[in-house]
Amino acid sequence: MTDANTARLLISCPDRPGIVAAVSQFLYAHGANILDAQQHSTDPKGGEFFMRMVFHLEDLDVTRAQFERAFAEVVARPFGMSWRVAYADQRKRMAVLVSKTDHCLLELLWRVRSGEFDVDIPLVISNHDLLRETTEAFGIPFYHLPVTPETKAEQEAQLLALLEGRVDLVVLARYMQILSPEVVSRYRGRIINIHHSFLPAFVGANPYKQAYERGVKLIGATAHYVTDELDEGPIIAQDVARVSHRESVADLVGVGRELERTVLARAVAAHLEDRVLIFGNKTVVF
Amino acid sequence: MTDANTARLLISCPDRPGIVAAVSQFLYAHGANILDAQQHSTDPKGGEFFMRMVFHLEDLDVTRAQFERAFAEVVARPFGMSWRVAYADQRKRMAVLVSKTDHCLLELLWRVRSGEFDVDIPLVISNHDLLRETTEAFGIPFYHLPVTPETKAEQEAQLLALLEGRVDLVVLARYMQILSPEVVSRYRGRIINIHHSFLPAFVGANPYKQAYERGVKLIGATAHYVTDELDEGPIIAQDVARVSHRESVADLVGVGRELERTVLARAVAAHLEDRVLIFGNKTVVF
Amino acid sequence: MTDANTARLLISCPDRPGIVAAVSQFLYAHGANILDAQQHSTDPKGGEFFMRMVFHLEDLDVTRAQFERAFAEVVARPFGMSWRVAYADQRKRMAVLVSKTDHCLLELLWRVRSGEFDVDIPLVISNHDLLRETTEAFGIPFYHLPVTPETKAEQEAQLLALLEGRVDLVVLARYMQILSPEVVSRYRGRIINIHHSFLPAFVGANPYKQAYERGVKLIGATAHYVTDELDEGPIIAQDVARVSHRESVADLVGVGRELERTVLARAVAAHLEDRVLIFGNKTVVF
Amino acid sequence: MTDANTARLLISCPDRPGIVAAVSQFLYAHGANILDAQQHSTDPKGGEFFMRMVFHLEDLDVTRAQFERAFAEVVARPFGMSWRVAYADQRKRMAVLVSKTDHCLLELLWRVRSGEFDVDIPLVISNHDLLRETTEAFGIPFYHLPVTPETKAEQEAQLLALLEGRVDLVVLARYMQILSPEVVSRYRGRIINIHHSFLPAFVGANPYKQAYERGVKLIGATAHYVTDELDEGPIIAQDVARVSHRESVADLVGVGRELERTVLARAVAAHLEDRVLIFGNKTVVF
Repeated sequence: MTDANTARLLISCPDRPGIVAAVSQFLYAHGANILDAQQHSTDPKGGEFFMRMVFHLEDLDVTRAQFERAFAEVVARPFGMSWRVAYADQRKRMAVLVSKTDHCLLELLWRVRSGEFDVDIPLVISNHDLLRETTEAFGIPFYHLPVTPETKAEQEAQLLALLEGRVDLVVLARYMQILSPEVVSRYRGRIINIHHSFLPAFVGANPYKQAYERGVKLIGATAHYVTDELDEGPIIAQDVARVSHRESVADLVGVGRELERTVLARAVAAHLEDRVLIFGNKTVVF
Repeated sequence: MTDANTARLLISCPDRPGIVAAVSQFLYAHGANILDAQQHSTDPKGGEFFMRMVFHLEDLDVTRAQFERAFAEVVARPFGMSWRVAYADQRKRMAVLVSKTDHCLLELLWRVRSGEFDVDIPLVISNHDLLRETTEAFGIPFYHLPVTPETKAEQEAQLLALLEGRVDLVVLARYMQILSPEVVSRYRGRIINIHHSFLPAFVGANPYKQAYERGVKLIGATAHYVTDELDEGPIIAQDVARVSHRESVADLVGVGRELERTVLARAVAAHLEDRVLIFGNKTVVF
Repeated sequence: MTDANTARLLISCPDRPGIVAAVSQFLYAHGANILDAQQHSTDPKGGEFFMRMVFHLEDLDVTRAQFERAFAEVVARPFGMSWRVAYADQRKRMAVLVSKTDHCLLELLWRVRSGEFDVDIPLVISNHDLLRETTEAFGIPFYHLPVTPETKAEQEAQLLALLEGRVDLVVLARYMQILSPEVVSRYRGRIINIHHSFLPAFVGANPYKQAYERGVKLIGATAHYVTDELDEGPIIAQDVARVSHRESVADLVGVGRELERTVLARAVAAHLEDRVLIFGNKTVVF
Repeated sequence: MTDANTARLLISCPDRPGIVAAVSQFLYAHGANILDAQQHSTDPKGGEFFMRMVFHLEDLDVTRAQFERAFAEVVARPFGMSWRVAYADQRKRMAVLVSKTDHCLLELLWRVRSGEFDVDIPLVISNHDLLRETTEAFGIPFYHLPVTPETKAEQEAQLLALLEGRVDLVVLARYMQILSPEVVSRYRGRIINIHHSFLPAFVGANPYKQAYERGVKLIGATAHYVTDELDEGPIIAQDVARVSHRESVADLVGVGRELERTVLARAVAAHLEDRVLIFGNKTVVF
C-alpha cells in the first residue's frame, strides 16, 4: 500500500509560532511534496509540539544526506527539534520474542507474509522450544534461549548478541520473561509488549484470573513500550471485549487471545509506519 | 413494554440435578406460563446455581400469597434456595442522590418520564442546592442535605429518615460523598453507584486526570453496587470509549459524561427489571 | 472548552505542491499562531486537497476583514481554493425541527444548556404540537407548523420565513416530513438529519421494522446532510449497537433511541466545530 | 473446553404452557443433569418456542438411542417439536471452500489446530490453485476444482461427490463462486458464507468499493447461511469497524480482512457449538 518513494518526518519540539511554516516551506523548497501531515500540541503556550509529515521524494533536488543535513541546520536547530526521517524503501527489521503460545506470533507472521506489514523478521527467539516448527515453516530462524535464574544473565547476553545490528524493533509476543534493564535501555522506545489486560487494571501475573475474580464486564489488552517499570511503559494501543458471568477463566483466555492479536498488530503497525512519538510516559499516535 | 400481568422469579441455590424440572413443574402445575428463562451455574458439581424465570400470572390457580407460600415449601426449602418474586404491577421506587453535575440525573429523569424505566422517583437528594430547579421541573421533590465533617452523622440520619419506607433502590448519580456503613448496610444490594473509570483502574478521586496522566487509549465508566469498600462493590455494567493524545482532561470529562449516562442507565434498567443477582462480590446479569 | 480568541480556516482545492507551505507561511506572517491542523488528499496527483487549520487571533497584525481579503488574494486565488474562516467568538445559531419524539431534541437542548455545544437555538419548529412544553421549559420559542398535503407549500413558506436570517444550521431531530427542494437548496450543506438505520441499509420508512424482519445482529443510526435524494446525502456520523433475536421491534426502537441521540449529537458537534467538509456526496470529518 | 460427556438438545415448536416442565422433567427422570439452558419465544401466545439445553450424559439410565426414542415419543410428539441432539464426543466435520485470499482460511485452520474449534477439516476445495501449500502445511487435502461457465455443472458434481458423506458443514471462506441450487439444497442450513459488508447494505460485488463511494463511516462483515437468494440468507453474526475519509478502497479491504476473520470465526463457533437455530429467514443464536 505504501509508495516506496515516500519518507516520513517525525518532529517534536517546544511549541512556538512558525514551526509548520518553516517545515512546510523547507520541504516545498526542496521539491518534497507533502502527502499527509498531522500535528499535536500539548499546549500552544509553552507546551510540546509534535508533527508527522509524509512526503514524496522523487522530485527532491538534493541527495537524502544533503536533505537531512540541510534540515538539521535550517529548521531543526533553530526550533530545538528532536526529529528523524524514515524512508519507505528502507525496510525495517523486527525480532519477535515468544514463550509458549502461538497466537500473537502467528498474527505477526501472517501479516508479514501477506504484505500487510512492511517489515522483515530475521529471527524469532524463545525461552521454550515449542514454536520452532511454526516459525521455521515461514522460513525464519528460531533460537531457543532457555532462561533460569542461574542462566538469566548469560542468556540475556546471548539475546543481545543475536539482536545486535540485526533489528530495529523487538516485539514481545506473549514473552513471559522480564527483560533486564540492559536490554531495555539498549532498545529504548523500540520494544513493544502485549499485556493481557486493560492497563492499568490487573498489572502483573494472571490478569484473566484477576479479571474473573473482580467480576469485570469487559476484558482488555494493552500494547505498550517496555520500560524498567513492569507494565508501566507508554501505551500504544488498547482494546476491550464484552464478557459476562458466563465466561470461565479459560473462556476469558480465549476471548483475550483475539484481543491480544488485534491490539498487538495495531501497535506494531503504528510503529512500523512511524506513527508513534513517545513523550514522557505517554504516546502520540498519529 | 412489560406486560403488567407478569412476574419474575429469581433463584440461587447450590447446584444439583432437578432444579429446573422442579421449578418449571411447579409453575406449570399452578398455571403460571413461562415467558422467558435464563440460568447459570458456576459449576454443575458443587457450584452455585442461578435462575431467572418470567411468567404470566393470569391463569394462576391460587392467590399470589398462596403461590409464594407453596413455592417456599414445595420447591425452595428442599433445594435450599434463596429466592424472590417481583410482580410487574408492583412498581418500584427509586431515590436519586446527586451533587453538582446534572447529566446522570437528567438521563434517569428523562427515562422515567418517557416510560422507558418502570419506576417512580419519590425524591432527589443532594449535598448541594444546584439541581433543585432541574428536579422540580419534573415534579419531583428535591431535598438539600449539605454535608460537612461536623454534620455528616446528622445528615445521614436525615437521609435515612427521608428514604425510610419510601424507596426500593438508591442511585448515586454522581453523588460525591461516601455513604456511611449504616446507610450501606440498610440498603445492601440496593445502592447503585456510577464510577467514572473502568474499574478497577483508577479507583478513587479524579479518575479522568489519572487516565490522562497514564495515557490510556480508552476511558471507561462502571456501575456497581455500593459496599463498604470504596469502588470495590459488585460490578453491574461497564463500557469504554476510545480516546487519544488529542483529548485534554476536560475533553475526557466530556467524553465520560456520555459513558456515565449510558452505563448508569443500563445498570439501573437491569436492576429494575430484576435481571441482577449478586453472588459474593460479583453479579450475574441475565 | 474553545478559546474564544481562535479561528478555524477550512480549505479545499485541487492538490498540488506548496499548499501547506503557502497557507502556514501566510498565517505566520500575519501573527496567526497555528494551534491545530489536519489535512487530507484524495490523491496527491490530481486529487482534491482538504485542510482545517485552527489558529490564535490575538496577535493578528491586521483586522479580520483585511486578513480575509489578503488571504483571498495571496493564497486562495492562486491555488483555486474554496475556503471559509469561522471565528470562535461568532456563535452559530441552529434551528431544530421535530415531530413527536423528544429524545433527540432533549439531547441537543441539554448539550446547549450545559455548554457542551457552542450554539444558540433561536427556535424549535414542529409539525405537531406535542413538544411545546419541553421546548419552552428551556426558554426557547416553539412554532407549530402542521403539514398536510394541501398546506405543505404554504407551511414551507412559513418555515423559510421563520428561518430566514436567524439560523446557520437546521437540525432535523426526528422530523418526519420531507423538506421540499426549495428549503434544501436554500440551506444546502447546512441541514443535518438523523436517520434511524445504518445507511444505506434500510432506506425509507420503518427501518427498525425492516431490521427486525431481516434479522440483523446490529442496528444503526446515521447522521447526514440533507439533499434532494431521500436518505442519500453525505454521511457525517454513524454508529451501531448489538441486538439479537431477543429484541422485538419495540425493543429495537428503544435501543435505537440511544444510538440516534449519540450519533446526531456527534454530527452536530462536528458541524459546529467546523470539522466537516463536503466533497461530492461524501464528507471529510477532521 | 467442552466436556466430551455432554449433549446439546435443540428444540423448536409452537409455544404453549408446559414445554420447559416436560423437557426438564424428562431429562431429570433419565439422569441427564442440565448444565445450561436458554429459551426464546417469538410470542407466548401462538408464537414459536426455541430452546437449547446442555446436559451431562454420564448418569443416563438408558442408551442414547433409547433416550432419543423415548424423547421423541414422550415429549417431542405431543408438543409438535422439531428437535435434534448433538453429542460432544461426536466431532463434526467441516469443508472449507476458498478462492484466492487466505485470511479466512488461515483463521479457521489455526483455530482448529489450537483446539479452539472442536471440528475436523477433511478437505479444502478451491476454484484456484493458490492456497494448496497453505492448506497442506496443516496436513489437510486440497482439491482444485476450477470453475468456468462451461465446466460449472461438472465441477459442482465433483464438489458434491467430494463432500458426500464426509462433512456436516461447508464454510465459504471468501469463496467467490455462487453455488447452484442443487448444492444449496443438499446442505440447507449447513453452508456458512462470509459476506464482506454489513448486510443488507452493499449486496453483491465489490462491497468495499460501494462502501467507499457511499462514504460510510463504518464498514462491516456478515456471516450468514447460504440460500438460493444471493446474500439474503439468515444472518448468524455481524460486526463493524470505524473508518473515515482517510481510508482508500485498498485500506478498507485491509480493515475488512480483520472483520471477516472475526465474524466468520464467531459464526462457525456458534454453529459448531449447536447454538444456532434457523427460523424462516432469521436465526436464534443462543
